[in-house]
Amino acid sequence: MSVLVVGSVALDSIETPHGQAMDVVGGSATHFSMAAAFFGGVRLVGVVGQDFPERHVRLLSERGVDLGGLVRQDGRSFRWHGRYSADMNSRETISVELNVFEDFQPQVPADWRDSRYVFLANGSPVTQASVLDQMEAPEFVLLDSMNLWIETQRSALLELLPRVDAVLLNDEEARLLTEEDNLVRAGREVLSLGPRLVILKKGEHGALVFGRDHELGVPVPAFPQEEVRDPTGAGDSFAGGLLASMARRGSVDLDAIKQGVVYGTILASFNVEDFGVNRVSRLSMDEIEDRRRRFLQAVHVAL
Amino acid sequence: MSVLVVGSVALDSIETPHGQAMDVVGGSATHFSMAAAFFGGVRLVGVVGQDFPERHVRLLSERGVDLGGLVRQDGRSFRWHGRYSADMNSRETISVELNVFEDFQPQVPADWRDSRYVFLANGSPVTQASVLDQMEAPEFVLLDSMNLWIETQRSALLELLPRVDAVLLNDEEARLLTEEDNLVRAGREVLSLGPRLVILKKGEHGALVFGRDHELGVPVPAFPQEEVRDPTGAGDSFAGGLLASMARRGSVDLDAIKQGVVYGTILASFNVEDFGVNRVSRLSMDEIEDRRRRFLQAVHVAL
Repeated sequence: MSVLVVGSVALDSIETPHGQAMDVVGGSATHFSMAAAFFGGVRLVGVVGQDFPERHVRLLSERGVDLGGLVRQDGRSFRWHGRYSADMNSRETISVELNVFEDFQPQVPADWRDSRYVFLANGSPVTQASVLDQMEAPEFVLLDSMNLWIETQRSALLELLPRVDAVLLNDEEARLLTEEDNLVRAGREVLSLGPRLVILKKGEHGALVFGRDHELGVPVPAFPQEEVRDPTGAGDSFAGGLLASMARRGSVDLDAIKQGVVYGTILASFNVEDFGVNRVSRLSMDEIEDRRRRFLQAVHVAL
Repeated sequence: MSVLVVGSVALDSIETPHGQAMDVVGGSATHFSMAAAFFGGVRLVGVVGQDFPERHVRLLSERGVDLGGLVRQDGRSFRWHGRYSADMNSRETISVELNVFEDFQPQVPADWRDSRYVFLANGSPVTQASVLDQMEAPEFVLLDSMNLWIETQRSALLELLPRVDAVLLNDEEARLLTEEDNLVRAGREVLSLGPRLVILKKGEHGALVFGRDHELGVPVPAFPQEEVRDPTGAGDSFAGGLLASMARRGSVDLDAIKQGVVYGTILASFNVEDFGVNRVSRLSMDEIEDRRRRFLQAVHVAL
C-alpha cells in the first residue's frame, strides 16, 4: 500500500562538531521517503528549483520513490544552513532560503488522491489543509508541525488537528501548544484538541504515545545511539518508519502503532549516524531488522 | 533476604510550585528504606540528632525497617532546604546543615555484616569505602554518588568504583565523571571504570542500564507521570525498589536487574506524587503491582 508524503525537498548545509556537509539533499519529504521506501511504495509531492542536482532525484527514484508529484520550477531550491551545538542538543539556523518552496501550492496528482496513508510534513497548516482537501478518503493522516506555525498560525493549526488521525510534535512544541510543562499532561491536552493519536518525540529519550484508548501514555525509549554525527532529518525518518510500516501492515490499531514507533525509532537511529541521507541511502532491510530485534530484546521485560 | 542501607536520615524543607512542606522526614536512607520495605527486611545505618521527632522513627519501624543501626547523637539532625523551579526540572539548595551527619562514621552492627545486598547511598566515597570494609561478603553492592564527590573526591570515587557491583548516576553526573556528552558513550565509560553494572537515571525520561554482557544499553522508560508534586527522594525510592526487589528474587542476572529497574521506576513514580514520604507511606503492594502491570502492558512491544 502506497504512502503519500507532501513536504520539502531541499539542499541542506550542515555543520556539527563531527564535520560538515554542504548542499546535500535534505528536506522533510526526502528524509521521510528514504525511510518509508523500505516498507513499500512512496508517492512524493514537492517542489525543487532548476539548481536541484539530477543525481539527488535519481537517488530517490532508485529507492522506489514515485516522483510523479515532484515539480521542478524556475528559481532556486529550498536551502537551509544550520549549525549544531557542541553537545548536539540544540542548533541554530544560519540561513534559510525558501525560494521555490515559498509559494508552493501542492497539487496531489489525480490518481494519487485515493492514497490511504498520508504524511503532511512540517509546513503551513493552511497548505497542509489544502492537501487534505484534495484527498478522497485517507485511512490515516499523520501531521507534523513546528514552533513557527504554533506561534504564527495557531488558529489554522487548531482547525486542522481534528481533521488528522495523528500528530507528531517534539516536547518543546507540545509545551508551546498547550502551555503545560508536564509532558504527560501536555500530550493529553493535545489529544483533547482533536487528533485521535498524539506522538511526542523526545529525541534521544524516545517517544510518548497518547491515544483515546490508552490515556496512560505509551513510552517507547530511543535506541541507545553513541554514533550521532548529524541529527538532521531524524524526526522525518522516524515518521517514515512509523507510517510506512503501518501501511505495510495495513493496520492502525495500538499494536501497529507501537510497532510503527519502534520502526521509526530504528530508522531515526540510523539516520543520525551520518550526514544527510548518507547512512539511510546505504542501509539494508537486514540491518533494520537486526537492530530492531536487538532493541526489542534489550527493552523486553517479562510481565 | 535483608537489604542494608547506609545513608542520611534528614529533616527536609521543600518548596515546589505545588506547595511546601517544612521539616518533613527525608534523606537518602529514609526514602530508600520506605521503598525497599515493600520487598523484605531493611537494615538502616544512619544518624540523627536530638531534634529528630520520634514519630518519624516510628514511621520507619512500623514499615518493618530495622533501625538497629540508627544512632541518635547530641546535636541537630541533617537539614536540607530546597526549592524547585516552575517546571520542576531544576532545584536550588536554599540551605544545608550537615550537623550530626558531618562527622558521621557509620558502624555496621556486627550481626549485619553478612548482609548480601547493600546500598551505599549518596555520601563521601571515603565513608562509603569504610562501610564496604566492614562488610563480609556482599553479593551485590549498589553505589550512589553526586556532583559534589565527583568534583571534590574524584580519586577516592575512582578507587571505589571497581569494588562495587553497580553504580547509580544521573545524566549530569555521568557526563561530569566522564567528560562525555553522549550519554550512551558516557555510560559505557563509567562501566570501564570498574563496576559491572551502570544505571543512568534520566528522571522523567527513564533509565539506561549498561553491563558487561549487554553493552548495547538497556533503556527503560519512566512511568508517564502527570502528578509530580515533589521529586525529592525519587532517586532513592528508585534504588529501594531496584535493590530490594532483586534481593527478594535472590538474583543479580540481567532479568532481575530489568525487573528491578521497573520496580524502581514504579516506586519513584509514587514517591513524586506527594511531598516527602507522604505518598509512599500510604502506599500498598497492590497499588505497586497494579501500576507495574499497566506500565509493562503499555511498554510491551511484541518481538
